[in-house]
Amino acid sequence: MKIVRFSYKKEVFWGILKRNSVRVIKDDPYKNIKPTKKHIDLTSIKFLPPATPSKIILTGLNYKDHAIELGMKLPKEPVIFLKPPSALIGHEEDIIYPKAVRRVDYEAELAVVIKKEGKNIPENKVDDYILGYTCLNDVTARILQQKDIQWTRAKSFDTFCPVGPYVETSLDPSRLKIKAYLNGKLRQDSVTSSFIFTVRYVVSFISGIMSLSCGDIISTGTPPGVGEMNPGDTIEVEIEGIGRLRNRVVIG
Amino acid sequence: MKIVRFSYKKEVFWGILKRNSVRVIKDDPYKNIKPTKKHIDLTSIKFLPPATPSKIILTGLNYKDHAIELGMKLPKEPVIFLKPPSALIGHEEDIIYPKAVRRVDYEAELAVVIKKEGKNIPENKVDDYILGYTCLNDVTARILQQKDIQWTRAKSFDTFCPVGPYVETSLDPSRLKIKAYLNGKLRQDSVTSSFIFTVRYVVSFISGIMSLSCGDIISTGTPPGVGEMNPGDTIEVEIEGIGRLRNRVVIG
Repeated sequence: MKIVRFSYKKEVFWGILKRNSVRVIKDDPYKNIKPTKKHIDLTSIKFLPPATPSKIILTGLNYKDHAIELGMKLPKEPVIFLKPPSALIGHEEDIIYPKAVRRVDYEAELAVVIKKEGKNIPENKVDDYILGYTCLNDVTARILQQKDIQWTRAKSFDTFCPVGPYVETSLDPSRLKIKAYLNGKLRQDSVTSSFIFTVRYVVSFISGIMSLSCGDIISTGTPPGVGEMNPGDTIEVEIEGIGRLRNRVVIG
Repeated sequence: MKIVRFSYKKEVFWGILKRNSVRVIKDDPYKNIKPTKKHIDLTSIKFLPPATPSKIILTGLNYKDHAIELGMKLPKEPVIFLKPPSALIGHEEDIIYPKAVRRVDYEAELAVVIKKEGKNIPENKVDDYILGYTCLNDVTARILQQKDIQWTRAKSFDTFCPVGPYVETSLDPSRLKIKAYLNGKLRQDSVTSSFIFTVRYVVSFISGIMSLSCGDIISTGTPPGVGEMNPGDTIEVEIEGIGRLRNRVVIG
């Protein structure tokens, strides 16, 4: 099932994707999904990020092929960092290229949406805490990232966290094709079986540090092929079984 | 005026500190402070963090005396990082020393609570966005901080962000004494006139990166004298004009 969050006539809804429409659900999808009888045409909605996180936790280097490309040893533990919720945008919203920044990169990632509170979750229980999977673009001001050493500023600008379009609730995350297209040209092309740390491992590891809440987003790192975007570009993150998250880059 | 957030008989309230009691206010204090006629005895409340942030943004090295102590050049720009809201605790709540961690340090800091949404706030308008000032302890797993390079894990454990007890709304933040006491012994002793970047500069700088929301917390760095805490210790952060934030360290 594909879950959507969207606005329609200035109201915010959650819904389930049907062929050409969205079936509205009652409340939010974290506890129980209660479909209503209301259907809204897909062309008349504005996509919103399909999660309402209290925190967004991302993982550094997590693809073997990316580590090899960079000539780096495989890490023994995930490196984690945070993006602020103020960076979130949805499918088809614009990424704003900050005026004072010189280079902005895309990073295609598979992200998890958490559906209930958890702490110290063992790996074999992680699935009980996952609502589903979505596409995330870990937009990064690359030169600032290198300069600051701490990644926070480079990754925290408003609009630097596109997420969506859907949360797919029935998916095995271990062998999914993941791709990025810049202006329609394939730039990242990998598969999640190249993960250094599996989704279950990453979620369990993070839950040993901080309590997870419903709606929290955990992202799992990017494969090889990251690169620069410029105003006017269109960037798409496509993950098998989920869909394609598309955003345009505009000048700030 | 000193603003308190607290629980009393399982309900959460905001209030204004009076001599031995708290006067309850209606709703939250971000827009308008509307006192009610209800007073609750100070001894019967449980302090909560006096802010409800969507994000907690902290500043690295920001005291000249600390930079000199470390033999470091003064930075040209603030280094910022985030803590997750799940790390927040209030006055008199326990700091949980994680089992798998070997060294946990205190860092006394002056923090700002934001009262309205803002972006690209010029320095001379920053005061309009500040509800007030409070004490914050940037608890840090020091060895993990050095190992990970990214500071996120080391600073994001649950309970690693004590804040409180009050938000003082009428305060000039530029010349305040700031101290930390470990088991009653003075360990940090500085004054905010030693800031490399003023409060106004820091808030303006951060608002140029990310939109601020009401309730957001911005912390301003720690003076010299940081050091290690152990289970059983009591750590206090005292700032002139605000009060003393006290927490005990317990084993996880």
